[in-house]
Amino acid sequence: MAIMSTPTTFRPVLERIAEEIERTPGSGRPADYIPALAARDPRRFGMAVAEPDGTVYGVGDWREPFSAQSITKVFTLALDLAREGDALWEHVGREPSGNPFNSLVQLEYENGIPRNPFINAGALVVTDRLHTRTGDAAGELLAFLREESGNPDLAHDAEVAASEAAHGDRNAALAHFMASYGNIDNPVPVLLDQYFRQCSVAASCADLALATGFLARHGIRADGSRLLSRSRAKQINAVMLTCGTYDAAGDFAHRVGLPGKSGVGGGIIAVVPGHCTLCVWSPGLDERGNSVAGVAALDRFTTLTGLSVF
Amino acid sequence: MAIMSTPTTFRPVLERIAEEIERTPGSGRPADYIPALAARDPRRFGMAVAEPDGTVYGVGDWREPFSAQSITKVFTLALDLAREGDALWEHVGREPSGNPFNSLVQLEYENGIPRNPFINAGALVVTDRLHTRTGDAAGELLAFLREESGNPDLAHDAEVAASEAAHGDRNAALAHFMASYGNIDNPVPVLLDQYFRQCSVAASCADLALATGFLARHGIRADGSRLLSRSRAKQINAVMLTCGTYDAAGDFAHRVGLPGKSGVGGGIIAVVPGHCTLCVWSPGLDERGNSVAGVAALDRFTTLTGLSVF
Amino acid sequence: MAIMSTPTTFRPVLERIAEEIERTPGSGRPADYIPALAARDPRRFGMAVAEPDGTVYGVGDWREPFSAQSITKVFTLALDLAREGDALWEHVGREPSGNPFNSLVQLEYENGIPRNPFINAGALVVTDRLHTRTGDAAGELLAFLREESGNPDLAHDAEVAASEAAHGDRNAALAHFMASYGNIDNPVPVLLDQYFRQCSVAASCADLALATGFLARHGIRADGSRLLSRSRAKQINAVMLTCGTYDAAGDFAHRVGLPGKSGVGGGIIAVVPGHCTLCVWSPGLDERGNSVAGVAALDRFTTLTGLSVF
Amino acid sequence: MAIMSTPTTFRPVLERIAEEIERTPGSGRPADYIPALAARDPRRFGMAVAEPDGTVYGVGDWREPFSAQSITKVFTLALDLAREGDALWEHVGREPSGNPFNSLVQLEYENGIPRNPFINAGALVVTDRLHTRTGDAAGELLAFLREESGNPDLAHDAEVAASEAAHGDRNAALAHFMASYGNIDNPVPVLLDQYFRQCSVAASCADLALATGFLARHGIRADGSRLLSRSRAKQINAVMLTCGTYDAAGDFAHRVGLPGKSGVGGGIIAVVPGHCTLCVWSPGLDERGNSVAGVAALDRFTTLTGLSVF
Repeated sequence: MAIMSTPTTFRPVLERIAEEIERTPGSGRPADYIPALAARDPRRFGMAVAEPDGTVYGVGDWREPFSAQSITKVFTLALDLAREGDALWEHVGREPSGNPFNSLVQLEYENGIPRNPFINAGALVVTDRLHTRTGDAAGELLAFLREESGNPDLAHDAEVAASEAAHGDRNAALAHFMASYGNIDNPVPVLLDQYFRQCSVAASCADLALATGFLARHGIRADGSRLLSRSRAKQINAVMLTCGTYDAAGDFAHRVGLPGKSGVGGGIIAVVPGHCTLCVWSPGLDERGNSVAGVAALDRFTTLTGLSVF
Repeated sequence: MAIMSTPTTFRPVLERIAEEIERTPGSGRPADYIPALAARDPRRFGMAVAEPDGTVYGVGDWREPFSAQSITKVFTLALDLAREGDALWEHVGREPSGNPFNSLVQLEYENGIPRNPFINAGALVVTDRLHTRTGDAAGELLAFLREESGNPDLAHDAEVAASEAAHGDRNAALAHFMASYGNIDNPVPVLLDQYFRQCSVAASCADLALATGFLARHGIRADGSRLLSRSRAKQINAVMLTCGTYDAAGDFAHRVGLPGKSGVGGGIIAVVPGHCTLCVWSPGLDERGNSVAGVAALDRFTTLTGLSVF
Repeated sequence: MAIMSTPTTFRPVLERIAEEIERTPGSGRPADYIPALAARDPRRFGMAVAEPDGTVYGVGDWREPFSAQSITKVFTLALDLAREGDALWEHVGREPSGNPFNSLVQLEYENGIPRNPFINAGALVVTDRLHTRTGDAAGELLAFLREESGNPDLAHDAEVAASEAAHGDRNAALAHFMASYGNIDNPVPVLLDQYFRQCSVAASCADLALATGFLARHGIRADGSRLLSRSRAKQINAVMLTCGTYDAAGDFAHRVGLPGKSGVGGGIIAVVPGHCTLCVWSPGLDERGNSVAGVAALDRFTTLTGLSVF
Repeated sequence: MAIMSTPTTFRPVLERIAEEIERTPGSGRPADYIPALAARDPRRFGMAVAEPDGTVYGVGDWREPFSAQSITKVFTLALDLAREGDALWEHVGREPSGNPFNSLVQLEYENGIPRNPFINAGALVVTDRLHTRTGDAAGELLAFLREESGNPDLAHDAEVAASEAAHGDRNAALAHFMASYGNIDNPVPVLLDQYFRQCSVAASCADLALATGFLARHGIRADGSRLLSRSRAKQINAVMLTCGTYDAAGDFAHRVGLPGKSGVGGGIIAVVPGHCTLCVWSPGLDERGNSVAGVAALDRFTTLTGLSVF
């Protein structure tokens, strides 16, 4: 990896990106499947960088909480892997799906084993297993995010969770479908409640960049304790790179070249292993569900800094 | 990227890997769809590392020529991208396919645009376009491989090419199918001849590790001239990481963590950007078409050296 | 239609068929997804013929109640069509599916509109719509079957319904999935309760042959009143012929040549338009879910009598 | 089957239908994938009825030759079944496909065995097998059509065949694809030549209604000899009903209620078993490839006469 700028020079890079984004507002639209998300202004933009030592800084709305949504799938995966290890991989794969994030097609051809932990079906399996092991998957996730971000005010957004539940037929279909193959342990309504609460966490770019730090630190948490082995932290980065941005993972790897995970709230986290973590937020999404300004900002970041895993 | 060993210490690492592979011979079987491949002894094993300056060394059968097959798709992609640039991406995608390498299903749902350049359909499109631009795609490839490897004796294997053609109905189906969508320029028989000759190149681990060097050198050829921009070289690494090992790209990224490309002849090339390139060969394949001992050796290499893009 | 035997000679035909079936017991196995069905002896066999005037006679276990299951889909379709007419066809198609009865794949490609009313997804839609129009779909069905069969003792089997519900994840997935496309009116739990009760009706060959009579009488009920227009009765026969036996409709048309509908309880109803209706029962199923002895008996019936729509 | 009008009263029925069709010209468009078909006036309309004794009469352009196209698949099937019998069904199924006529998707999931003889893949298999048995499939078909229609001038249309070949990539893909599964005997170019010539036959409504007569006569040819057993003739009618009108077989059965087979030249043949055969022609097609006025005319015919298999 060629490093053209040291971390301490990231600040001007962020400022330059923010200016560029402001000059050319993106064309994306906020997710509209639930009212709580649709109401956000698509021109909002924030970006934060967290260094391994916990330093964090940013530009724009980097301290504004937004709905983390699918970004939480990374943390749930880490928390479950830390508990059950490779046994998880018998219940969910780690291959790109080549299909939209909420498709049932592949699930049927592959007998109820989701392709990877970052499509909805896979995240439901991971949440189910974490819930079996902890008795409170959504609570476990929240505690982890609070500790890693150092922000004790992080919380589930009850309105968003309720809205998700009210529009949750597709996820209910996925959960019942996998249950019909014996790949779900908990009652479907219990699982869905956990899943919707988990996705509803509201957090800022600063919070999420910090919370992702363990992936830049090869598995070490903010307090210095080890969550995952070095090898397992690398594996999560690999799954993020190949499967982290819905059906656009190849394009994201091509443009950005970093492990990343997006959410329909407009956020994207990314990892420069060994160096730093990033979180960018802007609610306007492209047709594949990724933040338009968010991808553009990360693209600029890797171009300007020369940082990329390739 | 944490580097636990400098390049000059790779030699003992290779020796240790070779010993381990010898002690635990893999369970894979050679490709058997054409006789020329089926005849190889699955226990053969070779591995080479090439440094950016052209130094190359290896273990086992690292100087033994084998059928490069799909590994050539990387070079054809580079040669065409060098000529037509991003216009190529209107004719082939860069997303993982989530389907076997020779599937027609996705191609139908997506109107004749293959998912990426490393499934057969995509490589047919790239070869077709390179042929239109050069008048001799297979010849262009061979010249490139000779120059980069410094081995003027590299050649197409006429017997293998003829054998491929005799068992080429599936590729003929793919080519005609895409032609029906207007995504093929040359007559299908001309294209197939080019494609089968291209795949038939016989080369050793040493040859292919050297020929891949431009991807470790960020686009610079062996003679110091630039083939691709830094950005485009990174993009090829990204496509290799997300799509390079058939329907096992996620698993390969997870275990090995390097951009790689496999072929049914049992070879795999891999790139440590900025540091070195590798080629490993062993004819026994797993059910997804990747060399069993080859993947194991690369897995050990990244574990022992700590080299990985994550 | 060439009629080689008049209805009054059907009796010896049935006896001959029963003898043949007894001599060569089929190889099928009872449905085993719920215990209540799995317990049935696969060698049981009954067959009944009902003439348009209400005369009914049979052989073997023709008065033994069995679980009607998917056979009820025909009656629910008729009851809903009688109420809402062609508007139904905007919510469910009438094309063969080319897929197993409980597949979600096609449903996704076709945006939540099931292929036909006889796959589970389609029957859920029809039940949902009948329930909206009557407030009690399962009760409406039961009342109809009692009146047409003249058997006031017909009833839902609460144990079977409960067992279906306990193993109902696949149907729950289908219902939620269609609800996500806006193609379900009632709350999914309400719909599933109606659906499972409807399928659980226990009836004999005699009961079901009589209840099917309106299709041989071109839409006229047992009491002489008109349920459906002549044209609509023909249309139901057409849907039965093209879609009535799961993924084996072509084979059934080819062998038997009559509109028919099978259930996983081992029953099959069939219609000779203008002449008679049949019901055959034997619990051993083939791999596509149709009664082995049932199909064989109907095949013999059309061969021996020359009756067939072709 | 209720017969409301005797055959001798069909003439006024045809005249009434022709008047209605003329008053409400359809909205369909001619097939445009080859110029020879695209040039036809979509308002042309002809319809003929042939009685089992060889009497034929019609209305409109019933003596105008048009391109028979897929209608020939019925005759090729009959000719091959007459030769090899049920062994054919190991190489082609008899189930509705649930997919467009030229789809490769299902073929891949089902290992190169086409769903039925009336989709292109299935017709290629039947032609291949007939060619192996006769040495001249297209010639055998032409001889049969001449004899049954009594029209010695029937001929292949070389221009249409050449045009099909020039736009034949999709069929070439299907043939190579099945060859890759070992389900094609002859070299693909030989097969395609036979197939395109076969489809190119130009014939009139009168010719095709007469040539279809063996299906109304339960297997007996025009000269009184037997082509197929009664049972096998019924089976072809069954396959026509379930699979004869591309992906609209259910709808055709529902509206028309007769075994039928359409072609993209705008023709449709239909069978009233034991009574008569029909052929209607009008070049304007609906989006599923069936003649708009043709389906409407057959719909009116069965409504006005009460003839239908249901």
